[in-house]
Amino acid sequence: MQDAGLSADLIVQAKAVITANRRKGKKIAVAESCTGGLVSAALTEIAGSSDVFEAGFITYGNEAKRKMLGVNAEVLETFGAVSIATAWAMAQGALERSGCDVAVAITGIAGPGGGSEKKPVGTVVFARARRGEDPETIIADTRYFAENSGRSDIRRQAALCALELLMPDASPFGEP
Amino acid sequence: MQDAGLSADLIVQAKAVITANRRKGKKIAVAESCTGGLVSAALTEIAGSSDVFEAGFITYGNEAKRKMLGVNAEVLETFGAVSIATAWAMAQGALERSGCDVAVAITGIAGPGGGSEKKPVGTVVFARARRGEDPETIIADTRYFAENSGRSDIRRQAALCALELLMPDASPFGEP
Repeated sequence: MQDAGLSADLIVQAKAVITANRRKGKKIAVAESCTGGLVSAALTEIAGSSDVFEAGFITYGNEAKRKMLGVNAEVLETFGAVSIATAWAMAQGALERSGCDVAVAITGIAGPGGGSEKKPVGTVVFARARRGEDPETIIADTRYFAENSGRSDIRRQAALCALELLMPDASPFGEP
Repeated sequence: MQDAGLSADLIVQAKAVITANRRKGKKIAVAESCTGGLVSAALTEIAGSSDVFEAGFITYGNEAKRKMLGVNAEVLETFGAVSIATAWAMAQGALERSGCDVAVAITGIAGPGGGSEKKPVGTVVFARARRGEDPETIIADTRYFAENSGRSDIRRQAALCALELLMPDASPFGEP
């Protein structure tokens, strides 16, 4: 039997996210740039995910980041699309515009083009926003995946990392 | 080497969509419900897709359809989320809000739950909106995929159909 083919580790982690958030009664949203829909696709592969997953903002271009998530043009210009400032703004925008309880944002450079000395291919920034948390407390971090893993695997690893951040008991980035 | 694992036919069709639209200088957007990000994920798996693919609106819940795409609450209530009226409104909303040249919308019942006698599992509605086309000309149609294919394969088949609609020379639904 044919299927959509998403990698098994994505499906396992997506199922854990749906189950754990359903138990807590939490609705989730994602804002994806470099993963381009992979996190949303993994979450919605799970039967019954509509109880938990409400919305995905696939803001691949900068124009989309501005229009769909309200990311400030100056932030994009000053810090770039792959930055803590942009990831944070994407997560806040997704939380506000979806009305969900938690939103995770992913923006990075999957390659093979687009890398630079300061931001090589494999650089991915993550951010999480949760309802009721002080938006001034910035939960965001940069990860570096090996460039030679290739575009598809960088996307897979980034999607896995985003799914982990969507677990209700995640302690992101060394947060206590 | 590991990768995101998306099925080979999705990747082949996504590549054709990116290549053909790049040649025509067209920017594309998608509005996905039952495919939940699979079309966006396939398109962005292609290196250089950012030239062509701008935005994906993964509006899984009705609230997201209203907020992110401006689908009228009365349309959702009267015709349901899986209807020509909703698919058309999703495509128009994605076209307007992304500023792209073409937008395709997908809404359906991937199962295993959510089916009914009139709209069994496997019912999927597609719509396409293009800049400069009269929005009163409704390009939309309903397809029925076999329920026993299973959720993942219904999603894959629906994503393939949406990708075909994104080809610049597609003649959708018997349109001359």
